[in-house]
Amino acid sequence: AVVAAPVFAQSNPKISWKMTSTYGPSTPALYNTAQTFCKMIEEASDGNFSIRLYPVGEIVPGFGVMDAVGNRTVECGQTASYYYYGKDPSFCFDTAVPFGLNARQMYSWMYEGDGLKLTRELFAPRHIVNFPLGNTGTQMGGWYRKEIKSVADLQGLKMRTAGFAGEVLSRMGVVPQQIPPGDIYPSLEKGTLDAVEFVGPVDDEKLGFQKVAKYYYYPGWWEGSAQVSLYVNDEALNSLPKSYQSLVEIASRAAGGQMLGSYDANNPAALRRLIGAGAVLKAFPRDVMDASFKASNELFKEFSDKNAMFKKIHDNYMGFRDSLVPWFRVAEGSYDNYLGIALANQKK
Amino acid sequence: AVVAAPVFAQSNPKISWKMTSTYGPSTPALYNTAQTFCKMIEEASDGNFSIRLYPVGEIVPGFGVMDAVGNRTVECGQTASYYYYGKDPSFCFDTAVPFGLNARQMYSWMYEGDGLKLTRELFAPRHIVNFPLGNTGTQMGGWYRKEIKSVADLQGLKMRTAGFAGEVLSRMGVVPQQIPPGDIYPSLEKGTLDAVEFVGPVDDEKLGFQKVAKYYYYPGWWEGSAQVSLYVNDEALNSLPKSYQSLVEIASRAAGGQMLGSYDANNPAALRRLIGAGAVLKAFPRDVMDASFKASNELFKEFSDKNAMFKKIHDNYMGFRDSLVPWFRVAEGSYDNYLGIALANQKK
Repeated sequence: AVVAAPVFAQSNPKISWKMTSTYGPSTPALYNTAQTFCKMIEEASDGNFSIRLYPVGEIVPGFGVMDAVGNRTVECGQTASYYYYGKDPSFCFDTAVPFGLNARQMYSWMYEGDGLKLTRELFAPRHIVNFPLGNTGTQMGGWYRKEIKSVADLQGLKMRTAGFAGEVLSRMGVVPQQIPPGDIYPSLEKGTLDAVEFVGPVDDEKLGFQKVAKYYYYPGWWEGSAQVSLYVNDEALNSLPKSYQSLVEIASRAAGGQMLGSYDANNPAALRRLIGAGAVLKAFPRDVMDASFKASNELFKEFSDKNAMFKKIHDNYMGFRDSLVPWFRVAEGSYDNYLGIALANQKK
Repeated sequence: AVVAAPVFAQSNPKISWKMTSTYGPSTPALYNTAQTFCKMIEEASDGNFSIRLYPVGEIVPGFGVMDAVGNRTVECGQTASYYYYGKDPSFCFDTAVPFGLNARQMYSWMYEGDGLKLTRELFAPRHIVNFPLGNTGTQMGGWYRKEIKSVADLQGLKMRTAGFAGEVLSRMGVVPQQIPPGDIYPSLEKGTLDAVEFVGPVDDEKLGFQKVAKYYYYPGWWEGSAQVSLYVNDEALNSLPKSYQSLVEIASRAAGGQMLGSYDANNPAALRRLIGAGAVLKAFPRDVMDASFKASNELFKEFSDKNAMFKKIHDNYMGFRDSLVPWFRVAEGSYDNYLGIALANQKK
């Protein structure tokens, strides 16, 4: 029901779009953001621009969002670009890479740095215009049946993980497994899986991992933040009146902010409940972090050597990171660290 | 030019508003956000809802925004609520209080916690509906002519600061001074002022403090983050069609995100230039932080004892803080700290 732009005499024409998602009601923290986005568009256009949202699988499979939007099966979709690592690892820069930007830094790179420009260049040949649509914040490092005391304990570990992180972990001895969420719990229970990384307390809690893999490690160094994306078909976007194009941009920013705010508000209580249910919280040992950092940097170099677009985005992204991280340690980091300690001491 | 709601036959009526600001072109990082907000509204309404922005002093003085919006001299305004500390210290919870929420936590409290509900209750008798309109992130602790080695060095220190922070600092021996930005530099030069706190690298750089007060301290514990606000006159807001009301909300969220992203992107280079120009970066000594934390808590208690609304907001805000801070230390904090150290080591 999309009509070419010149037809519009009035400025608020009736337009109906379809939106598909990689997520559904079983991961509400992610899926709700797409619902919020559609609601914002609908309300601000007085119901004239409406987007009907379909959960994962209803019209498009979970990892089919990129193709479905590219070929205009649907006008737009919600997904995370690192699921398309197999097509091109460069897509990971639109979501997360190991030891990458935290949520605020990512937002800043996308809109105030070159992030949006560079990732749009990457998406253009696929007829997709990408917009940030939220972030989970720093994820957890996953659930383990046994304690990880050093890098040696990673040898032969059968772990549910994928993409970039899977590749890095495999170089440290882990055997990555691709397993759909519904099959993870039984695999852990049977012992055919030793570990699993999913998201963080809010999403992990629903799956009950703490009953069979009680060690809950942090931080998820492969997802210092994970950005979720809105994909819009390029022709569909261009055929919108300018006011609706603008609405897509501001609603994606507004709904995206809401996702992070919601994770931040709900993770603390979810973590407390998990600990109450038996989860044992552990920091990754320093040698695991160091080995992961080293292996990640080696992989970045390999991809950069053989993929010019990867190198172009990588260099810009890492330049931004290397500039922002030292500043974040000064004011933000010293403030957060002091307050964390002061409140912990007050409790004693 | 605002007409009562029932008159609208069409859904995108022509409406023109005036907006005043506490800021102006001399603090672009803050003022630009108001410009962005107006531009978003204008574009998304196809020019039908336009808001004309006036910089500080043009029609309303800097700290007159609350009254001007309340009595509908203008329909809306950009300001920071802690400037109205003198009317009621409770307003500070809409901006910053010592040892309060960082930027992400503040956003989360406002929208996902009870922040918006409670602050709107506070503003309602003044005929104002408040919306968050950005955040500066953690501010710096200011510029000092002499090193601060312990709490003793704060005795008799003439420091430009105000509001809540001024009250806490005065209990630690500081003599707070209220001085307009233009007079700060000459006062420091003449020695009638020993120290000044303003914002952070981006805004401080323009004023040249490093030439006369080279010690640049962090963190600004009185502003772990500072939220900027949009005030809208209640009747003006209620007379808008629902679609424009919705637009005000999503544009304030979107423009607000842009402010923080811009500070995050530009502070690192500003700090490097300041250091290049002679600034000496220093962390506040632990005993200064501890004494500040203690004095702040005493002041919170005093205000809570005599102001029921202060107590109501305080207890909710601090409950949210005490729940979120330990979680932020786990994934976010451990990730940020590791990456900061790893990158610093890599440089060596």
